[in-house]
Amino acid sequence: MSRTDHGKQFDVTIIGSGLGGSTLAAALARNGVRVLLLDGGTHPRFAVGEATIPYTNVTQRLIADRYGIPELKNLCTLADSTRAIGPKFGTKTHFGFLRHEEGKPQDPREVNQFHTPPALLAEAHHLYRQDSDSYVFHLALQYGARARQNFRIAGVDVDGSGVTIHGENGDQYRSRYVVDAGGFRSPLAEAFNLREQPTRFKHQSRSMFTHMIGLPHTDELWSRPSADRPPVPWNQGTVHHTFERGWFWYIAFNNTKLSKNPLASVGLTLDPRLYPRDPSLTPMEDFMSIASRFPDIERQYAGGVPVREWVSTDRVQYSSKQLVGDRWCLLAHAAGFLDPLFSFGLAVTGDAVNALAWRLIRAVKDDDFSAGRFEYMDRMQQARLDYVDEVVNAAYTAFSDFDLWKAVFRCWVWPNNAGTFRLQAALSKFRKDGDDEHFRALEEPPYLGMDWPVHEGMKQLYDLMVSRCDAVQAGRMSTREAADDLWGVLSTANFMTQPFGFGDRERRFMHPTPMVVAKSALWARRNADPMVRQMLLGVGKEAVGSRLRGSRIF
Amino acid sequence: MSRTDHGKQFDVTIIGSGLGGSTLAAALARNGVRVLLLDGGTHPRFAVGEATIPYTNVTQRLIADRYGIPELKNLCTLADSTRAIGPKFGTKTHFGFLRHEEGKPQDPREVNQFHTPPALLAEAHHLYRQDSDSYVFHLALQYGARARQNFRIAGVDVDGSGVTIHGENGDQYRSRYVVDAGGFRSPLAEAFNLREQPTRFKHQSRSMFTHMIGLPHTDELWSRPSADRPPVPWNQGTVHHTFERGWFWYIAFNNTKLSKNPLASVGLTLDPRLYPRDPSLTPMEDFMSIASRFPDIERQYAGGVPVREWVSTDRVQYSSKQLVGDRWCLLAHAAGFLDPLFSFGLAVTGDAVNALAWRLIRAVKDDDFSAGRFEYMDRMQQARLDYVDEVVNAAYTAFSDFDLWKAVFRCWVWPNNAGTFRLQAALSKFRKDGDDEHFRALEEPPYLGMDWPVHEGMKQLYDLMVSRCDAVQAGRMSTREAADDLWGVLSTANFMTQPFGFGDRERRFMHPTPMVVAKSALWARRNADPMVRQMLLGVGKEAVGSRLRGSRIF
Repeated sequence: MSRTDHGKQFDVTIIGSGLGGSTLAAALARNGVRVLLLDGGTHPRFAVGEATIPYTNVTQRLIADRYGIPELKNLCTLADSTRAIGPKFGTKTHFGFLRHEEGKPQDPREVNQFHTPPALLAEAHHLYRQDSDSYVFHLALQYGARARQNFRIAGVDVDGSGVTIHGENGDQYRSRYVVDAGGFRSPLAEAFNLREQPTRFKHQSRSMFTHMIGLPHTDELWSRPSADRPPVPWNQGTVHHTFERGWFWYIAFNNTKLSKNPLASVGLTLDPRLYPRDPSLTPMEDFMSIASRFPDIERQYAGGVPVREWVSTDRVQYSSKQLVGDRWCLLAHAAGFLDPLFSFGLAVTGDAVNALAWRLIRAVKDDDFSAGRFEYMDRMQQARLDYVDEVVNAAYTAFSDFDLWKAVFRCWVWPNNAGTFRLQAALSKFRKDGDDEHFRALEEPPYLGMDWPVHEGMKQLYDLMVSRCDAVQAGRMSTREAADDLWGVLSTANFMTQPFGFGDRERRFMHPTPMVVAKSALWARRNADPMVRQMLLGVGKEAVGSRLRGSRIF
Repeated sequence: MSRTDHGKQFDVTIIGSGLGGSTLAAALARNGVRVLLLDGGTHPRFAVGEATIPYTNVTQRLIADRYGIPELKNLCTLADSTRAIGPKFGTKTHFGFLRHEEGKPQDPREVNQFHTPPALLAEAHHLYRQDSDSYVFHLALQYGARARQNFRIAGVDVDGSGVTIHGENGDQYRSRYVVDAGGFRSPLAEAFNLREQPTRFKHQSRSMFTHMIGLPHTDELWSRPSADRPPVPWNQGTVHHTFERGWFWYIAFNNTKLSKNPLASVGLTLDPRLYPRDPSLTPMEDFMSIASRFPDIERQYAGGVPVREWVSTDRVQYSSKQLVGDRWCLLAHAAGFLDPLFSFGLAVTGDAVNALAWRLIRAVKDDDFSAGRFEYMDRMQQARLDYVDEVVNAAYTAFSDFDLWKAVFRCWVWPNNAGTFRLQAALSKFRKDGDDEHFRALEEPPYLGMDWPVHEGMKQLYDLMVSRCDAVQAGRMSTREAADDLWGVLSTANFMTQPFGFGDRERRFMHPTPMVVAKSALWARRNADPMVRQMLLGVGKEAVGSRLRGSRIF
C-alpha cells in the first residue's frame, strides 16, 4: 500500500485478517464498501480451528450467496477446497470419540461416532488453515479491500465523525467504522477495557497444540472384532480421545487420497483445576505426561514428530462486557472464546460475519454508525458464547461417564443439525426469489444463542442438560441419575429423529444409511413434532429434487 | 521436540530451514545422519528466489537421485509441483527482457527472449516458495531430521569434540558439526566475524519486492504487430524490465491453467550509486517513483495491489572471508549473495548442497570433521560467487545499450545451458551404473566457479566480457566498441551453437523449434568444437532415446 493510501478515507477498518476478518472484508468490498484490513501478523500462517461442521459450511454458503462471493463456497467441501486451493485438506466424515480411563486400555464399548449423513447434511472437512485463510484474504483484496500486514496498532481513537487507527510505525488510517476481529489480543478490548475480569464463563480449560507427522492411524492401534469397529474408520474423521474433564484431538490432513499433506493437527485441552500447568515442563513434556496416563492415547501420539513449535496456553476462556459501541464492534473471537470442542469457533464466526455484513453495508449507505443499529451484534454474540459455555462445560462434566456423555453429545449434535437445516431452508428460499428478508427473518428467534433457537422442547432439554450436569459437577447428583433424566427425554421426544437412534441409549455408532433416512422420512410423517416434520420433509424433498436435477443442495 | 531431545547427540546441526538447509537435512537424514534443523522463523513463510532455471532443476534431480530422495523431483516441473504440492506455481517457458529508457515508451526493437527448448533442457518454472520450502522442510522431518523453529541462537561454541548451540531461551543442543544455512543473518558469520567489510564484490544493487494481485499481463500493455511479438507470450515466462543499471521483475504465479494462485512476485533491483535510497519514501513510493520514469513500466505495475508488506533493502551484496573451519561450514546465502538477476541463488545453493552432503555423510562415518575435508566448499562457493559477481555486474553495465546487453546475455545463457548439460550427462551415467564417482569427477574443473567450467574458449569469452564491461563502466570504452568485440567472438565461435542464433546480432527472439534443434545436430556434427559436439550429440541421443522409451530424461 502506498503512502497516498494513508490519506484515503475508508468506510470500514477491520482489525485482523484471519478467516472472520477476511470473510467480512470480502463481503463488504464486494458490496461497494471501502475496506481496510489491518493485521499485526502476516499470511501465510498457522491457525487452529481446523475441523468444520455442517453448520459452518452452510453458514459459509449462505454468506457466499447472500453477499455475492461464490468463491467462498470453495471452502465448503473437500473436493472444492482441493481443486481451488490445493491438495492439503483432510476428510471429516464423522465426529468420533473414544473414552479413556487412567492406566487402562481404551474400552471398545466406550466409543461413539456420529457419521455425517451426506445425503442430508452439508459435508464437513479439515481445513488447512494457512491455505484457507490466505485464500479468503486474497479474495478480499481481489474484491477491492486494501491491507496492511505486520501492522501493529498503537491506539484507536473514535470520535463523532470517524475512527483513527494509529500504527506503532506512525502511520495513521481514518475510517467511518472499525470492526475488531483481532481475537484474544483485540486492540479495542484493550483500549476500551472491555474484558470481563474474571470471565463470566463457567467452563475452564487450558490447551496445547501443534502439527505433527508420523502418527499412526487411530484404527491401527487395535485389532478389534468388526462389532467394535465403527462403520467408518476413525481416521476418516475428527478423532477425540476423551478422559475426565479433558480431551485430545487428532485432525488428520493426510486421511484422503485427495491430500498430499503429510501433517495432522494434534492438541490437548483439559481442565486446569484438575491438571494444573507445571511451568517446569515443556509443552511436549506436558502433553506426553498427560498422554502417558492413558496407555492407548500414549500409543496414538508417541511416534509423532512436531513440525512446528508447540503453542501452550493457560486458561483459554475470556469474555467481554460490551461488544458494540458507536462506530465499533467486536467480532467473533475478539468478543470471547470457549473451547475447540464441537468446532464452535468457525460456526459462531460465520453467524457473526453474516449478521454484521448487511448492517455495515446499510450503515455505510445511510452514514449512520450509531451503536443502536448494531445492538443485535452484542446480544447475539453474547448469547452464542453463553450457549457454547453451557454445552462445552456439560460435555467436560460428562466425559467422566460414558452413558452421560452419549446423552450430552446427542443434546448437542441433533439441534446443531437442525439449526443447519434451518439455515439451509432460508438459503433455499433466497435462491428462489433473491429476497434478503429470508435471512433477516432468522435473526430474532425465541431462544437466541442456541444452534436451533426456535424449538421449545429442545430448549427444555438443553435446560435439563445444563441443570443436571451442573448438579453432577457440584457433587449434588450422580452421573447415573443425570443420565437417566436425559435419556428419559431423548428416548421419547418426538423432536429427536428416533430412527437415527438419538434415543437409543445402547447405540455407539450413528450411521444414517439410506434405509435409516427412509425410515426417518416415514417417522417424520407419522410421529414427529410438527416443526421437525416440516423441516425434515422439506430437506428431504429438496435433497431428492436436487438429485433429480443433477445438482446438490449443499 | 521434547526436552529429552535436548540431551540427544546429533551429528549435524543445520542452522536455517529454508530450501538449502532443508534439502541438505533431507539428504543427510536419508543417509543415516542424525540431523537437527534450527530456524529463527517458522514455516510457512515468504521467500524470494522464485524463478528457477534448467540448471537449478537438474541440480535438484541430481541431488534427488544421488542421495535417494525421489520426492525432491516434484520441485522440478510445473506439472509435478502442481500435483504433489498444489496449484500455486507459475510457468516459465522463457527468459524475457524488455529494455526501457526514461520518459520513452518501450521500444519493441529492444526486447529479447530466450525460449527454453523443452526437448533439450530441463523445464524451469516459478516456485511459490512458501509451499516449496515447507514441502522440503516436511520431507526432511519425514526422513528423520528433527527441528526447532522460532529458535533464536544466542551463541555457538565449537570445541575439539563438537559444537554447542545455545538458544536465547536457554535450550542447548550438541552435535558433531554445524552447517550455517541461515542466510544474510548467519549466526556463524557473526560469531566468527567472517564478513568482508566492505565486500570484495564489485556489483552494487539495492532491492525492494512484494507479492501483488491485479497486474496486467505484459502482453496486454501494447498492441504490436506480429513481427514485434515474441514467439511465446511475455506472460508465459519471467519478465524483466531493464533500464540503466537496474531492472524490475514480474514473476507470475497465475500464468498457467494449472495454477489457482492469483499472485505475482514483483520487485525492483537497481544500483544505489545512481539511485540512492530516499528514506522519506515508503518502499511502494520508492518503487513507483522509479517505475514512473518509464511510462510502460508504470503501466505494468500501476494497478497492482500488494498482498504483503514490501521488503526494502540497502545494498544487498555481502561476502565472507572464510567459509569453512573445523566442524563448521557456511552454506549458500550464509556465505554471500549477489543479485536475483539470472536466478543464480537456487542454482548455486543446489551446487553447494550437492557438494557438502556427501562430504558430511563420509565425515560422520569417519568421525573426522577437520576443515581440510571441507576445503573445497570454501573454494567452490567463493569461486561461484565471484563468477556471479562478474556476470551480474556486466549485465547491469550492458543494460544501458541493447546491442551490448544481448551479447552479455548470450555470454551467460549458453554456458549456463552447457553447464546444465554437463550435470545431466553425469546424472545419466550415474543412473546407469550407480557409481558416485561420476559426480565427484565434476568437482575439480579447470575453471571452477563458472557454470560451464571446462571450456577454454568460453573462459576466454567470459574474460573478454568482463574486461570490456569493466572498461565501459569505467568510461574507458564505448558500449559499441565493447559490443563489437563480443559479437566478433559470438558470431564465429564454434562453441556457440550457431543454429540457435547465438551469433546472430540482429536476432531478438531465440526460439528453438524442432527445425532449429535438427539444424543444431547437423551443425554439431559438422562444425562444432569437439567438446560441444560430444555434449550436444550426447544430449540429443538421450532425448531421442528417452522419447522412444516413453520416458523423459529430465
